[in-house]
Amino acid sequence: MDHRSYVSPFSWRYGCEELRSLFSEQTRRTLWRAVWVALAEAQAAQGLIERDELDDIRAHAGEVDIDAALAIEREIHHDLMAEIRVFASQAQRGGGKIHLGATSMDIEDTVETYRLRRALSLLGAQLRALLDVFGRQVVRYADLVCMGYTHLQPAEPTTLGYRLASYAQDLLVDDAQLRFVFEHLTTKGMRGAVGTAATYERLAGFGGRSAEIEAHVLERFGLRAGEISTQTYPRKLDYLLLSALAGVGASLSKFAMDVRMLASPGFGELGEPFGSKQVGSSSMPFKQNPIMCERIDSLARLLPAYADVAWQNSATNVLERTLDDSANRRVTLPEALLCTDEIVSIARRVIEGLRVDERRIPVAAP
Amino acid sequence: MDHRSYVSPFSWRYGCEELRSLFSEQTRRTLWRAVWVALAEAQAAQGLIERDELDDIRAHAGEVDIDAALAIEREIHHDLMAEIRVFASQAQRGGGKIHLGATSMDIEDTVETYRLRRALSLLGAQLRALLDVFGRQVVRYADLVCMGYTHLQPAEPTTLGYRLASYAQDLLVDDAQLRFVFEHLTTKGMRGAVGTAATYERLAGFGGRSAEIEAHVLERFGLRAGEISTQTYPRKLDYLLLSALAGVGASLSKFAMDVRMLASPGFGELGEPFGSKQVGSSSMPFKQNPIMCERIDSLARLLPAYADVAWQNSATNVLERTLDDSANRRVTLPEALLCTDEIVSIARRVIEGLRVDERRIPVAAP
Amino acid sequence: MDHRSYVSPFSWRYGCEELRSLFSEQTRRTLWRAVWVALAEAQAAQGLIERDELDDIRAHAGEVDIDAALAIEREIHHDLMAEIRVFASQAQRGGGKIHLGATSMDIEDTVETYRLRRALSLLGAQLRALLDVFGRQVVRYADLVCMGYTHLQPAEPTTLGYRLASYAQDLLVDDAQLRFVFEHLTTKGMRGAVGTAATYERLAGFGGRSAEIEAHVLERFGLRAGEISTQTYPRKLDYLLLSALAGVGASLSKFAMDVRMLASPGFGELGEPFGSKQVGSSSMPFKQNPIMCERIDSLARLLPAYADVAWQNSATNVLERTLDDSANRRVTLPEALLCTDEIVSIARRVIEGLRVDERRIPVAAP
Amino acid sequence: MDHRSYVSPFSWRYGCEELRSLFSEQTRRTLWRAVWVALAEAQAAQGLIERDELDDIRAHAGEVDIDAALAIEREIHHDLMAEIRVFASQAQRGGGKIHLGATSMDIEDTVETYRLRRALSLLGAQLRALLDVFGRQVVRYADLVCMGYTHLQPAEPTTLGYRLASYAQDLLVDDAQLRFVFEHLTTKGMRGAVGTAATYERLAGFGGRSAEIEAHVLERFGLRAGEISTQTYPRKLDYLLLSALAGVGASLSKFAMDVRMLASPGFGELGEPFGSKQVGSSSMPFKQNPIMCERIDSLARLLPAYADVAWQNSATNVLERTLDDSANRRVTLPEALLCTDEIVSIARRVIEGLRVDERRIPVAAP
Repeated sequence: MDHRSYVSPFSWRYGCEELRSLFSEQTRRTLWRAVWVALAEAQAAQGLIERDELDDIRAHAGEVDIDAALAIEREIHHDLMAEIRVFASQAQRGGGKIHLGATSMDIEDTVETYRLRRALSLLGAQLRALLDVFGRQVVRYADLVCMGYTHLQPAEPTTLGYRLASYAQDLLVDDAQLRFVFEHLTTKGMRGAVGTAATYERLAGFGGRSAEIEAHVLERFGLRAGEISTQTYPRKLDYLLLSALAGVGASLSKFAMDVRMLASPGFGELGEPFGSKQVGSSSMPFKQNPIMCERIDSLARLLPAYADVAWQNSATNVLERTLDDSANRRVTLPEALLCTDEIVSIARRVIEGLRVDERRIPVAAP
Repeated sequence: MDHRSYVSPFSWRYGCEELRSLFSEQTRRTLWRAVWVALAEAQAAQGLIERDELDDIRAHAGEVDIDAALAIEREIHHDLMAEIRVFASQAQRGGGKIHLGATSMDIEDTVETYRLRRALSLLGAQLRALLDVFGRQVVRYADLVCMGYTHLQPAEPTTLGYRLASYAQDLLVDDAQLRFVFEHLTTKGMRGAVGTAATYERLAGFGGRSAEIEAHVLERFGLRAGEISTQTYPRKLDYLLLSALAGVGASLSKFAMDVRMLASPGFGELGEPFGSKQVGSSSMPFKQNPIMCERIDSLARLLPAYADVAWQNSATNVLERTLDDSANRRVTLPEALLCTDEIVSIARRVIEGLRVDERRIPVAAP
Repeated sequence: MDHRSYVSPFSWRYGCEELRSLFSEQTRRTLWRAVWVALAEAQAAQGLIERDELDDIRAHAGEVDIDAALAIEREIHHDLMAEIRVFASQAQRGGGKIHLGATSMDIEDTVETYRLRRALSLLGAQLRALLDVFGRQVVRYADLVCMGYTHLQPAEPTTLGYRLASYAQDLLVDDAQLRFVFEHLTTKGMRGAVGTAATYERLAGFGGRSAEIEAHVLERFGLRAGEISTQTYPRKLDYLLLSALAGVGASLSKFAMDVRMLASPGFGELGEPFGSKQVGSSSMPFKQNPIMCERIDSLARLLPAYADVAWQNSATNVLERTLDDSANRRVTLPEALLCTDEIVSIARRVIEGLRVDERRIPVAAP
Repeated sequence: MDHRSYVSPFSWRYGCEELRSLFSEQTRRTLWRAVWVALAEAQAAQGLIERDELDDIRAHAGEVDIDAALAIEREIHHDLMAEIRVFASQAQRGGGKIHLGATSMDIEDTVETYRLRRALSLLGAQLRALLDVFGRQVVRYADLVCMGYTHLQPAEPTTLGYRLASYAQDLLVDDAQLRFVFEHLTTKGMRGAVGTAATYERLAGFGGRSAEIEAHVLERFGLRAGEISTQTYPRKLDYLLLSALAGVGASLSKFAMDVRMLASPGFGELGEPFGSKQVGSSSMPFKQNPIMCERIDSLARLLPAYADVAWQNSATNVLERTLDDSANRRVTLPEALLCTDEIVSIARRVIEGLRVDERRIPVAAP
C-alpha cells in the first residue's frame, strides 16, 4: 500500500480481505474474462467460433495484465474495451472472436451481479454467525433483571436477555430482507445494447437462439436474468440492495448506541471488550472508551448515504441507459458491502466479549 | 380548509381522500378508542372490569371531541392522556377503567401499525391497477418498433411495448417488496412501558394472562406482534416501509423521466394526456408541457428523504425508547404514503392516456 | 381546521402563526396580485396601460377569491393562470392588461423570494433572541464547575457556562450563514419565459426598457435580481437556504441531545422546564421526560432531508427550466422554515427555563 | 497500487495527485509531527522543555515510519498514541516531552483543519480557473442565438453565451460560499481533553499561559481557533464545508445535465470534446457519448450524501465529544474534496473543448 497517496480506509482499516479481494480490479477482470470464455463456449456450440479459437481464448483467460489495459484505456477512455484488446493480443488465434455480438454491459453486469450476490452470501453467513452469538447471550442473561429506560429515564424493570433479544429480532428482519434481495437480484443477461439480444440473434441466424447463449453464461455464474432488460439490469435493484444494507446499519447502530450509553458510569451496566494493552486516551489513560461501538455508529451512517446515491441513479437513468450511474457505483457498491461487513464483524466482537457488571445491573423486580 | 394559514399540499393537492381520512386526527382518535374498548373487553373477560363499566365505555367510544382534548393537551402536554380524560369524562361509570395497565404506546402503536398496513393495502391495490394498465399497453405496443437510446444517443431499435414492459417489471419488484413489508410489519402488542407486559400481568394475577389480552386486541385489528417489544415496535420497520415506498418512487421517477424526454420534440414520440381546456403556459399557450410526469419526478424526491429521517429514528433511538421519533413521524409516515399514492395515481393516468405518435416513432428494423 | 382529513402538524402543532400566514394560499395570491399591480404601474409609465385601467387593477387587487380560482384551475391545470382569470373578471376595465408580457415565474419567483427572505428575517430575529438568552445563561453559569464528558465517560472538569457557550458559538455560525444566504438570495426578476426579458422589450419598443419595469417591481419587494436568469432564479439557491437551515438543525440537535443526556439520572445535572400540570407518562406519572428536547431532535432530522430534495431539484433541472421542482417545493420550503422556527422556539424555552441541579453538578476543580 | 485488493477510485481514477498526497497517511503523520515540534517550541519558551530535548525532537520529526506505528496500533488500538511511541523511540533525548499536556485532538484537529483549508485553497483556485474558461466562452458565444427550452419543449430564443453565463453565475455563488467556509473554518486550538486548556495551564503555572502555546502552534499553520472548544472543533463546520461542496456539485451537475441533453441528436447543438482515439461503445463505435458529463453527474451525487453523514455527526455528537464521527470522516472528508476536484476539473475540460454545432443552433431571433 502506498501511504504517500490517499488510501480509502476500506482498503485497509475496515472490511474483510475476502470482500476486498472480490472487489479488486484483478477479480473484476478475471471474471470478465470468465464471461467471455462462457460466451465463446456458447457461440462455439452454435458454430460461430472454431474449436481451436475457443481453446486459445480459454488458454489465455488467466493472463490479466492490468498495467497493459490501463495504458490502452488512457487512450480510448473505455475500460472494458481496453481489456478486450489486451486479451485479444494474448489470444492471437481466437482473440478476434472475444465479445462477439456483446455489448459492454452484458459482461459488466453479469460480473457485477455475480459479485453482489457473492458478497451477499458472505454477509449473510456473517450475520447468522452474529445471531448465533446473540442467541447464546440472550439465553445467558435471560433472567438478569435490569432497569428499562424510556426517554433515558428509568422506567420499569426488564431483563438483559430480553433487551439483547430485541437487537437479535431486528437482525432477523435484516436477514429476511437480505434473502429477499438475494432472490430478486436478477442480472441483465446477454441482451446487447438495448436489451433485445438483436446482435446475438443476427449472428446465430435468429430463431431465439440468443437464449441458449444466455442460459449457458448465466448458469456458469449461478444467475437468473430479468424477463426484460435495458442495456443494464434495473438500477433500482442497487437501491433495493443498499437500502437493505442500510437496514442492517440501523439495527447495529441502535445496538451500539445502547451499549455506549450503558457503558457510561451513570448507567454502568455494560462495557465492550477491552484489550489488555489497549489505551484509553492519550491524556486520560484510565478511561475505557466504547470505541468499537462508536465505530459502528460512525460507519453505519455511510449506509443510508450510499443508498441515496443509488436512488438517484435509479430515478434519473434515462431510456435504455445513461452512464451517470457508473462512476459512483465504483464507490458505493463495494464500500457499502465492506462497511456492512465491518460493522457486523465489530458487533460480533462486542456481543461476544460483552462485559456485564452483574453487581450494578440488578434492580428489584416489581 | 383555512387558506389564511399554511396548508400542506398533501391536505388538498396530492393524495387520495381515503388516505387523508385514514391519517386524520378524527380517525386516529376513533381507532385509539377502539383499542381501549378491545382492551376493556379482554380485561372484562379476566374479571377486571364490570359488565356495566364495559358497556359504558363501549357506549361512549364514538364521541371523539377533538377540541376538548386539545384544550386539555395544552395543559398536560400529552395528547393521548388528554384523550383518555375526555373519554373518561364521557363514560362516567366505566371511565376509570380505560387504559388499565396500558402505556400510551400500546394504544398508539396498535393504531399506527393498523393504519400503515391499511394504507399499504390501498397502495397495493393502486399499484396492481397501474400494472393492469401497463399490461394492456405493453401488449398494444409490443411490435411498434422504436429507437432505443443509450447516453441519450440513438443506439439500436427496440419496441415501445418492450420499453413499457421494463417499467412494469420494476413495479413488480416494488409490489413484491410492499408485500414483504406488509408481512414483516408487526406491531408492538399490549406490552406496557418497556415491553414486558408486567403491568397487565400484575393486574391479571400473573400466569401469562397478558397474552390473552394482547391476542384479543390484535385479533380485532388483524395484527401480529413481534416476539420481543420495547416500548414501541422496532422503528427499523418504519425504514423498511419508507425505503420500499422510495423504491416505488424510483421506478415511477424513471418512467416519468423517460416520458418527459420522449415528449420533447427532438424525440417526439410520446405525450402525456392533455385536457381539452388545459393551457400550456401563461406566455406560450401552444406548448404541451409534460406536467404530470414532472410532478411525479418532483414528488418522488420526497420519498428517499422521508426514508432517511426514518433511518435516523431507527439508528439513534436509545434503550427501551426515546421520543425523538415522534414529531417527525407525524409528517413522514402519512406524507410518504400520500405521496406514493399520488404518483401511482398520476402514473396510471399517464400510461392510460399515453399519446403515441405512431408516425414519428417507427424506425427501420435491423 | 378539518380534523376529518390529514392536516400537517406544521399547520397547527409546529411553527408560528406568522410563518403559517406568510405561507398561506391567501398571502401567496395577495402577493401575486401586488406584483401584477407593480407591473401595471411600471407599464403605465411606459404608456402601455391607461390610467383608468391601472386604477381598476389596483382597485380589485384585494379581492382574492380562492374558491373561484380553484374551480378554474381544475379545468386548466395551471394555478397562476386561474388567478389571472379571476382577477381579470373582477377588474373588467383593466383586467386584460394584467400580466402583460410576463411569464408565470416572473410573478411566482418574485413572491417566493420575497417570502423566503421575509421568513429569513423572522428566523434571524428568533435566532438572535435565542442567543440573548444563551448569553445570560452563559454568564450565570460561567463558574459552575461540572464534569466534562468524552465518549460519554467522565473526562476533566469544565464549567456549565463554558459548555453553554459552545452551543451559542455554533448558533453564531448559523447566524452568519443565514445572513450570507439572505444576501445571496437574489430573485429572477421580470425576465419572461427564458430569462431574456424579450417580451417586455418588444412591448416597450426595445431599448432596454424592460430594466425599468424590473427595477420598479423589485424595489417594491426589496429584492435584487441575479444578473442572469433562466425561467426561474437558480434553484441552487434553495439548496443554499435549506442547507443553512439544516445547519441550525444540527446545532440545536446537538444542544438538545446533550440536555437529554444530562437530564438522565446517571448524569442528573440538568432538566428542561416542566409545566406544573404536565404529566410524565400515562403509566409512569412520576417521570419528567425531556420531551421538548426530544422534539427538537426529532424535527431537526427533517431539515437535511428537505435540503436533499432541494439538491436534486437544483442538480437535475434541465436547460431554461423544467417543472420537476414545483410540487416538492410546496412542501419543503415552508416546512423547512416552520420546522426551523419551531426548534429555535423550543430551544429558547428550554434554555430560558433550564433547571440546574447545582447540588449534583459541582465536581472538585483540579 | 495493489490491484488484488479493493482500491477506491479516488486513489487512482478521480481527483488530483496534490489532494491525494495531502490526504495520505504520510502527510497526516508528517503534519502531526510538525504540530508536536511547534508545541515543543512553545513549551521550550516556557521552560518546560530543555534546548537539547527540543533539538532532538526537531531532528527526528522527519522520520515517519508507518509500518512501525501500525504494528503498535494493532496492540493499543490508538493511532496517534502509536505515532507518539514511534517518534519517542526515535528521539531518545526529547521523546518523553512530546505531546506534553496535549490530548490527541489538539494534534489531530490542528492537522485536519489545516488540510481542509489547504484543500479549499486548491479547490478555490481550480474553481476560478474554471470560471476563467467560462468567461471566455460566454463572450465568444454571447450573440449566438439558440432556442431556450422549458419543460424540455422549445420556448423562446436565448443565446448560448447567456446560457453559459447562467452556469458561471451559479459557480460564483459557490465561490462566495467556499470563501465563507474558509473564513469560518476555525480549528480547536491547543485546549486539551475538554477544551479548557487545563493541562497546559497547570504545566505552565497557570496565568493564561496556555494561550501563548496555542498562538505559537496555530500561527505555524495559519489557523485561527474558535473562542470555545470542546475536545474538537465543532463538527457542524464539517457540514458547513461538505454542504458547500455539494453546492458546487449541484451547479456542475446541472451544467453537465444540460450538455448531455444538448448533445442528444434531437437537440444536437453541443458536444463535449472527444479524443481522436476515443471509442464510442463496444458494440456501437460510431456513437459519441457524453461520458465526461455523465461522470460529473454521477460523482456529484456523492456530495450531498457525504454532507448528510456530516450532518449526523454534528447533530448526534454528545457533550464534550463522542468518537462516532471519526471513522466516517476518514472517508467523507478526503473523498468529498477529491470528488469536487474531479468534477471541477472535468467541467473545465468540457467547457474548454466544447464542440458547438453553429449550423444547427441558430434559430430566428424574434
